[in-house]
Amino acid sequence: MSKKIKVGMLGIGNVGRGTYQALEMNRSLIAEKTGLDIEIVKILNRSPEKDRGIEIPKEKYTADVQEIIANPEIDIVAELIGGIEPATTYMAEALANGKHVVTANKAAIAANGEKLAALAQENKVLLRFEAAVAGGIPILSSLTGPLLSNEFTQVHGILNGTTNYILTQMSMYGKSYEDVLKDAQEKGFAEADPTADVEGLDAANKLSILISLIFGTAALPEDIPTRGITTVSNVDIQYAEDAGYKIKLLGSAERVGDKVYGNVEPVLLPCEHPLASVNNEFNAVFVNGNAVDELMFYGRGAGPLPTGSAVLGDIIDMAGKTEKGSAFDIVPKLRYDSDLKFAGEGSSKYYVRMAVPEKSGILGKITTIFGEHDISIEVIRQEAAYELDGEQVVSLIVILFRTEKSNLMKALDKIEKSDAIHSVENIMRVE
Amino acid sequence: MSKKIKVGMLGIGNVGRGTYQALEMNRSLIAEKTGLDIEIVKILNRSPEKDRGIEIPKEKYTADVQEIIANPEIDIVAELIGGIEPATTYMAEALANGKHVVTANKAAIAANGEKLAALAQENKVLLRFEAAVAGGIPILSSLTGPLLSNEFTQVHGILNGTTNYILTQMSMYGKSYEDVLKDAQEKGFAEADPTADVEGLDAANKLSILISLIFGTAALPEDIPTRGITTVSNVDIQYAEDAGYKIKLLGSAERVGDKVYGNVEPVLLPCEHPLASVNNEFNAVFVNGNAVDELMFYGRGAGPLPTGSAVLGDIIDMAGKTEKGSAFDIVPKLRYDSDLKFAGEGSSKYYVRMAVPEKSGILGKITTIFGEHDISIEVIRQEAAYELDGEQVVSLIVILFRTEKSNLMKALDKIEKSDAIHSVENIMRVE
Repeated sequence: MSKKIKVGMLGIGNVGRGTYQALEMNRSLIAEKTGLDIEIVKILNRSPEKDRGIEIPKEKYTADVQEIIANPEIDIVAELIGGIEPATTYMAEALANGKHVVTANKAAIAANGEKLAALAQENKVLLRFEAAVAGGIPILSSLTGPLLSNEFTQVHGILNGTTNYILTQMSMYGKSYEDVLKDAQEKGFAEADPTADVEGLDAANKLSILISLIFGTAALPEDIPTRGITTVSNVDIQYAEDAGYKIKLLGSAERVGDKVYGNVEPVLLPCEHPLASVNNEFNAVFVNGNAVDELMFYGRGAGPLPTGSAVLGDIIDMAGKTEKGSAFDIVPKLRYDSDLKFAGEGSSKYYVRMAVPEKSGILGKITTIFGEHDISIEVIRQEAAYELDGEQVVSLIVILFRTEKSNLMKALDKIEKSDAIHSVENIMRVE
Repeated sequence: MSKKIKVGMLGIGNVGRGTYQALEMNRSLIAEKTGLDIEIVKILNRSPEKDRGIEIPKEKYTADVQEIIANPEIDIVAELIGGIEPATTYMAEALANGKHVVTANKAAIAANGEKLAALAQENKVLLRFEAAVAGGIPILSSLTGPLLSNEFTQVHGILNGTTNYILTQMSMYGKSYEDVLKDAQEKGFAEADPTADVEGLDAANKLSILISLIFGTAALPEDIPTRGITTVSNVDIQYAEDAGYKIKLLGSAERVGDKVYGNVEPVLLPCEHPLASVNNEFNAVFVNGNAVDELMFYGRGAGPLPTGSAVLGDIIDMAGKTEKGSAFDIVPKLRYDSDLKFAGEGSSKYYVRMAVPEKSGILGKITTIFGEHDISIEVIRQEAAYELDGEQVVSLIVILFRTEKSNLMKALDKIEKSDAIHSVENIMRVE
């Protein structure tokens, strides 16, 4: 005898379609494995005439959100609209009405996760958002389930498929950033306006959620230092590879004492690091726990069906708990109350590429200023000359031993203000 | 207010010690996150005088297994003895006594998982064994939790750290199998008697468990065609790398129609495959689901603390369900009842290395016999001559297009019976 579970879905874009299709494909298998007969009974859709490339009975559509979030027949609400509002309001109302809520909405959870989680607890219902971070990869379920017995020291994620595709193609084929971006847009891997991806904002939302689950402390996306891939050039990639590194856009956070340091930026990763082999549109999350040691999860971070798989996984998990209050003492909470404090950027090794005029005495000036700031140089390399803003310059690349980011910025500021260099062209962390 | 959970542990070897230590390290964190205060109250230990390198109060030890499996105060029994018996009997008694059971015992679960799972269900208690496959990697929890909404088409696992360490070292440093094995034994990565590892038997136990969870059909270890790494030579590794492949010992299974094909053997994997970068003692499991597409889980497949992390994860999961019968309708079952049937080895591309006398006309004979068996040759390569059993031979390496394994064996049998070759030196699947 299977138990009937009625789901109401808000939105029928990419993720909604993927969720609907994944359920169509596997509904009987899910019933066989779990005894749950899950049905999507209502879908909020304000343009029912639009062709979604999928057969959905018209009577499931409604233009009235209350028919879903206030419908006493519906057990679970799947919020798949995206964006902070009105999604947050809809989720809050659904939770207040005693519905479990699942969402794929990274922006809303990063901004309002704490508030929504508290509301869920108050109403003895569940809030799940596996699909909000790294698409189909079961990273949040693992962190809040089988890995609960660990204290984590660090997390590094390739959390955005678009930027990983661009960096991989630049690296593999020596193509320029602009050419690859255009190609990615044509293939549908990049949006017409790619800002949220290439500037690292999408990754910052996901890192914010990971930090709250892993370290139990709030790091709002706007508080996470974030830099995208627009400054990464083929020169950087070539140099990094010669030196045994791959460049990846990482969302990283690390615990040091009672502080959590973290940011989103392009990073030089040693080629033998498991994340260095994660190519093209794939995502991966690497964590280090005090019992389990290193773990990496790899898979598709986007796409209708992979994301739908994660949404359905959450639905199945919650569906077994539709009797209000059942098993609630054991549901791990989103923690925003540990003693750890998010503190932005910490210390690291750094890669710096500068454009330097072809004059004598320059190297001495630069190394002296680094020395005054107690920054030691591990590697220094000068590349062939080129023209920049009408001036003949050379690329001067240095890899610096561990220093505070703020100290590095002071040194570079002093270097820029001296007449030693034309400009600082790129700064990246070295893992 | 935290809920007290009392655990009785059978055995205090590597895994038992790791579980105890991981709990010592993180007990208050677990309590903070879950509201569960977990304590290991009794430990079966028949040599309490032996130094385990860990402080355990003597009063926790008992030499009488009944003090644990029949103790009304104990909620959960952790079976960490290993081996099929008496472990299976102890687990069966504990389940019959209404205790949840967690185990790290791949041999007992591969042999008796179906029986034990049925017994657990009968008694409305849980049986968990995350640690039995790939150590700390949360693969079983993911398959039976967040990935439940998928139908899987294939699984490939690097399931044994010892053999992966040996193959990696042979590949990286050109060392011989014998030298690396000796080195691994000295470092504690390989047992004094390495048979179970190097012959693939350990991996076969784990693959058996994966097949039952993924495809819902029984494949006993003894029914899984299994070949280890003892035939892999440096010549094979060098040739594979020249052709763009890495050699890994894989436990693989694939669904084709209503059949599941699978085996354990060394496989040539394209360098860009995510499993190809999994090096040294690390394990990884790669699955492909019809919604989530490709996923890979990477981490430590052995070691006290990583394995302890998995055992504790299971304990926490079960601890929330200590009221008998709570939430049981939603616990996914071990399935041995799907319509799929395990059918051993199927078809694949193959790599074959033969030792061939230095005579004319040989190549014609060999290619003719392959042709008679409808086997097409993709690549053929002849290596420099060497002496084998007092005869001057050359290595002839072929990569063959997809064929049934049984058909390949017929062709090779005919080739061996003709006077065309000295011997078939190695056969490996090519992914």
